[in-house]
Amino acid sequence: MHDEKILKVLRDRPGEYVSSDELCKDADISRAAIWKRMESLREEGYEIEASPHLGYRLVASPDSLIPDEIKWKLDTRILGKEVIAYKKVDSTNDVAYSLAEKGMKEGLVIIAEEQAAGKGRLGRKWASPPKGGIYMSCILRPDIMPNEISRITLLAAVAVAKAIREFSGLSAMIKWPNDILINGKKVCGILTEMKAEADAVGFIILGIGINVNTSRADLPKVGTSLKEEMSRSGRGEKLSRVGLARKLIESLEHEYASLKKRGFGPIIEEWKSFSDIIGSRVKVMTHSRTFEGQAHDIDQDGSLVVRRERGQMEKVSSGDVVIME
Amino acid sequence: MHDEKILKVLRDRPGEYVSSDELCKDADISRAAIWKRMESLREEGYEIEASPHLGYRLVASPDSLIPDEIKWKLDTRILGKEVIAYKKVDSTNDVAYSLAEKGMKEGLVIIAEEQAAGKGRLGRKWASPPKGGIYMSCILRPDIMPNEISRITLLAAVAVAKAIREFSGLSAMIKWPNDILINGKKVCGILTEMKAEADAVGFIILGIGINVNTSRADLPKVGTSLKEEMSRSGRGEKLSRVGLARKLIESLEHEYASLKKRGFGPIIEEWKSFSDIIGSRVKVMTHSRTFEGQAHDIDQDGSLVVRRERGQMEKVSSGDVVIME
Repeated sequence: MHDEKILKVLRDRPGEYVSSDELCKDADISRAAIWKRMESLREEGYEIEASPHLGYRLVASPDSLIPDEIKWKLDTRILGKEVIAYKKVDSTNDVAYSLAEKGMKEGLVIIAEEQAAGKGRLGRKWASPPKGGIYMSCILRPDIMPNEISRITLLAAVAVAKAIREFSGLSAMIKWPNDILINGKKVCGILTEMKAEADAVGFIILGIGINVNTSRADLPKVGTSLKEEMSRSGRGEKLSRVGLARKLIESLEHEYASLKKRGFGPIIEEWKSFSDIIGSRVKVMTHSRTFEGQAHDIDQDGSLVVRRERGQMEKVSSGDVVIME
Repeated sequence: MHDEKILKVLRDRPGEYVSSDELCKDADISRAAIWKRMESLREEGYEIEASPHLGYRLVASPDSLIPDEIKWKLDTRILGKEVIAYKKVDSTNDVAYSLAEKGMKEGLVIIAEEQAAGKGRLGRKWASPPKGGIYMSCILRPDIMPNEISRITLLAAVAVAKAIREFSGLSAMIKWPNDILINGKKVCGILTEMKAEADAVGFIILGIGINVNTSRADLPKVGTSLKEEMSRSGRGEKLSRVGLARKLIESLEHEYASLKKRGFGPIIEEWKSFSDIIGSRVKVMTHSRTFEGQAHDIDQDGSLVVRRERGQMEKVSSGDVVIME
C-alpha cells in the first residue's frame, strides 16, 4: 500500500520539488522513512525524481486502476467516494453484490485490471483480459420499483457513450439495450443486476466493462477497443484508463442525478440521440421467438416498441435486437 | 439424525408390529443397533411401542418440522423434494437466497421452528416466535421478467389461502397484495425476493410465515393464529403443522404449475374470489403519497387499479392499502 499523504503533498505542488524537510512535516513521516516510501511508490509505477539538494518531484503517475488515482480530483458527491481495486477478481459485479448484501452504501465502486469470470447479459461471458480494460461495478440504491430497472440500464448506456465521446472524441453509439459500439463494433458491455422485493428495489449493481487499450489479439472477434479505433482514425495513442474511469464515474453520477431530478424522459431522448435504431428495420430474438419489424420508439419502461407488419405494436424488454441492413 | 430407513419400515405397516428380524433385514441394520436407533427416534418425539415378542410399532409421529415428516407422502414433483430444517435461524429467506446464489435448484424448501430476524415486506420485521409457527422459504426459478414478480406474490397468496381453507376449514381471506387474514386479523405474511438482471430473473425466494398453533401471548397485537381462530369458532384443536406445511407445499406447486400452463388470468380470478377489496372504498399509502378511491381491479401485472374521484385510474404496485369501513 502506498502512502497517500506523500502523494498528496507532491501532487499539491505540480512540477515542483518538495524538500525532505517539507515532506516530513506535511506528510507527517520521519526523515528515515522517506526513501523507502518513495521506492514503494516507484514500484507501483510512479515516476519520482530525487535531487540531493532540492528534494523530490512527481514526474508521472502510473495508468493503473489505483483508488487514489481514480479519486484524485474526482468531481462527484456519491459515486466513487469509495473505490476498491483488484489486480484480478472473478467478477466485479459479484464482489459488489455481496458487499451490497452486507449493507455497503450507495456509490461504492469495485474496479479490476482483469476478471477471471467476467459476466455479460443473460448468463453470457464478458472477456476481461488484463492490460488495457476497465472492469468496474457500482452499488446504487435508487428509490425505484423492480420494473423500472431498465431505466438504470439505459441511463448507464447514455453515461458511458457520453464519457467515451468526451474523453476520446470517438463516435460511440448505443445498441439496444446497452451495448456501446464504435464503427459497428462492441467496445463496452453493461450488466445491471438487482436484489429486490416484489415492490421495492433493495440495491442495483451496475457493471461496466470497457476495452480501452486492449490489443487486437486480446479482443473477441466482434469486439474492438478504444485504442484500436483511435489508431484506425489516425490517432495511435493509448488513452489514460484512470482518466476515463474518472470521467465515467462523473458521467454516471450526472445522469443519475438527472434521473432523480427530471425523471426518465430526458434520458430516453439522449439515448435516442446516440442510437440509430429508431425507424430502422429490426430483427428481434427473444428466448422464445424471433420476429421482424420496424423499431418505433423507446417507452417509459425502457422497452423497445416494435411495429409489426400489420401495424400492431410489440414491447420488447428482453433478448437481442439487430438492425437489418 | 434419525434413521430414515427404520421410519420407512414402520410407516409402511401402519398400526402393525414389526419384528426385530424384519427390521434388521428391511432397514439394513444390525440387531444390536435397533435399540439405540429407537431411543433417538423417541427423543425426536416419535412414540414407539416395543413388545418383547412382537417387535416395534409406530404409534405417533411428532409435530416437528422434520424434513422426513414433511416429505412423507408429499405429492409434488418439484417443490419440497428437498427440505432443510432448522430449529432456529435468522431468516429462512436469507438462507434460501444464499443457497440459490450458490446454484441450488428450484424447489428447495428451507423451514424453521423459529426465526431470530424474520423479515416482512418493505424492510419490516415478521415476529417468528418458537412453538407454533411455520416459517418457510422456497427457491423458484421461473422463466419470467423482473416486472412479473408480483404474479408470484399473488399466486402465493392464493396457494396459502386455499391450503388454510382446505386444512382448517377457516375462511382465510387475502388482503392486497399478499397478507392472509382470518376474521380480519393477520395470520400469514408473504415476502417475495429476487435476484434479477434488467431482463431476466435469476431466482425468486418465496417466504411464507404462518401462525399455526402460536399462543395469544406470543402474537403481535394485530395478528392471530389458526389455533386462536379455531378455538373462537368452538374447535379448540391444535393443527398438525407438518400436515399444513405439506398441504402448503402441494398447494404452491399446484398454482405454480397452473401459472406455467394457463397463465396469470385464472390466478387473478382466484385471488379476487378470496378478497373483498374489489369494489370497496380504499385508502392507499405508498412511500410518497396517500390517496383514496375505489378498488377497481387487479391488472395483468398484479397491480391494484384504483379509481380516483374524477374517474381517473391509478395503478398501485407498492405500499399498503386499507379498506375504509
